[in-house]
Amino acid sequence: MDAARIDVQALSLTAPGVEQLEVEEAKTLARETNAALANAFRRHPSRFFGLVALPIGDPPAAIAELERSTGEGGFEGVVINGHHRGRYLDDRFFWPILAHIEALGLPIYLHPTQSPKAVVDAWYGGLSLMVGEMMAGPGWGWHIETALHVLRMIVGGVFDAHPKLQIVVGHMGETLPFMLQRVDVMAPTMTKLIKPLSAYLRENVHYTFSGFNFLPTFLDLLLEVGVDRIMFSTDHPYQPMAEGRAFLDRLPVSDADRERIAHGNAERLFGL
Amino acid sequence: MDAARIDVQALSLTAPGVEQLEVEEAKTLARETNAALANAFRRHPSRFFGLVALPIGDPPAAIAELERSTGEGGFEGVVINGHHRGRYLDDRFFWPILAHIEALGLPIYLHPTQSPKAVVDAWYGGLSLMVGEMMAGPGWGWHIETALHVLRMIVGGVFDAHPKLQIVVGHMGETLPFMLQRVDVMAPTMTKLIKPLSAYLRENVHYTFSGFNFLPTFLDLLLEVGVDRIMFSTDHPYQPMAEGRAFLDRLPVSDADRERIAHGNAERLFGL
Repeated sequence: MDAARIDVQALSLTAPGVEQLEVEEAKTLARETNAALANAFRRHPSRFFGLVALPIGDPPAAIAELERSTGEGGFEGVVINGHHRGRYLDDRFFWPILAHIEALGLPIYLHPTQSPKAVVDAWYGGLSLMVGEMMAGPGWGWHIETALHVLRMIVGGVFDAHPKLQIVVGHMGETLPFMLQRVDVMAPTMTKLIKPLSAYLRENVHYTFSGFNFLPTFLDLLLEVGVDRIMFSTDHPYQPMAEGRAFLDRLPVSDADRERIAHGNAERLFGL
Repeated sequence: MDAARIDVQALSLTAPGVEQLEVEEAKTLARETNAALANAFRRHPSRFFGLVALPIGDPPAAIAELERSTGEGGFEGVVINGHHRGRYLDDRFFWPILAHIEALGLPIYLHPTQSPKAVVDAWYGGLSLMVGEMMAGPGWGWHIETALHVLRMIVGGVFDAHPKLQIVVGHMGETLPFMLQRVDVMAPTMTKLIKPLSAYLRENVHYTFSGFNFLPTFLDLLLEVGVDRIMFSTDHPYQPMAEGRAFLDRLPVSDADRERIAHGNAERLFGL
């Protein structure tokens, strides 16, 4: 096991959620964030790579920022922190951005965010403040929200229009492996898609651990999507790196598969 | 394998969703439904048992209907079809009903329903009519809605107040097994509960197949909650009985465990 390579993957840097800001503020914050990341790459070129933050509420500006940042080097993907004020990436408003990302061959890391306020109020209202926040966030809501977003992208035809697009989701797949065969009740005759939903989950999505160091959950993912789409990651600094590493080392997989999960798949996907 | 016993379990009868009706209408429909079921038990006493439908929007009426129906025999549990116009069972308004159900030693089958309208609009809006309906229903939304309901019951303290209460959820656990270890980030110091959330999922919940004949999903459930809490069921008439039976017969479990899943656990839980 090459621990340094694991570090590269685990420490890939992402930006805060610019998606919920006003467009002008988002443009500024994305540019500043990407510049700060680029500076980190220049200082530690063998150690870090990054994901571009984009002001997706203004597609021409997002495309300009995408081209500017990737021209500087060190960016090997894009991070999008979920819905943009209630609009999901199946909305054709965003498709010019997706077309550019696809053309550049960059994966999109779809990072969790809180659900739209109407969902939060209906689902988590009436709970204590702290429990409500956790239920809407890392205890439950972030994950379901991200899974919903992936499903909307699929049924909205994003991957039929952009078949080379690859997205990455964390947390062992955000419940999607559990539901992977079920979602096929939405058959192509109904969705008008080229393939069953599960095919997109197996062909256009990669999955990382993100601190979901739970063997039954990992096995569900492994048996549904196969080892080539699974990538080790921790949730640094929220969870101990050592815990993630120990989980990886104990997984009941072959040494070759462990290498794929630890770094090989990420190297291929991100072109490292 | 005793196929007749499987049939008893698979064909246990449930009522339609009286929870979304006006109280007077719900009272009438619950009474009529329960009477129709009681008539079926009288004609086929060795073949059917049923779950009581209750007008939970009027707790005194629900308790009266519960006592009336169970007095007639043949009812071995209660069915509640999810939230009552946006209110979940963690709401203390419903707790007098839960106290009576607990005292009678009856399990509650928590059946899926559609999420509150605000959630449906925010999450499934903008999709085609048919895809939106499926996403809000059997393709995704019903399951997530039911899982959310179970988590609200737990964090709302239902099982600390009513520790003998047992609920049953279908569809291999409605994504809860996938998230079972994760939800423990909501620790007792935060929730003020007696136990971690996962303990309630292992001690106050039973799980049925309901046509989720997916081996990776089953294994996730089995490894998280253990064989004693898993019960065979089909989704008759929506899925072929033979398919469910074949899935059961092929499960990689011991013969003794297969018997527990096929009928033993249900006999114990429902007191058959």
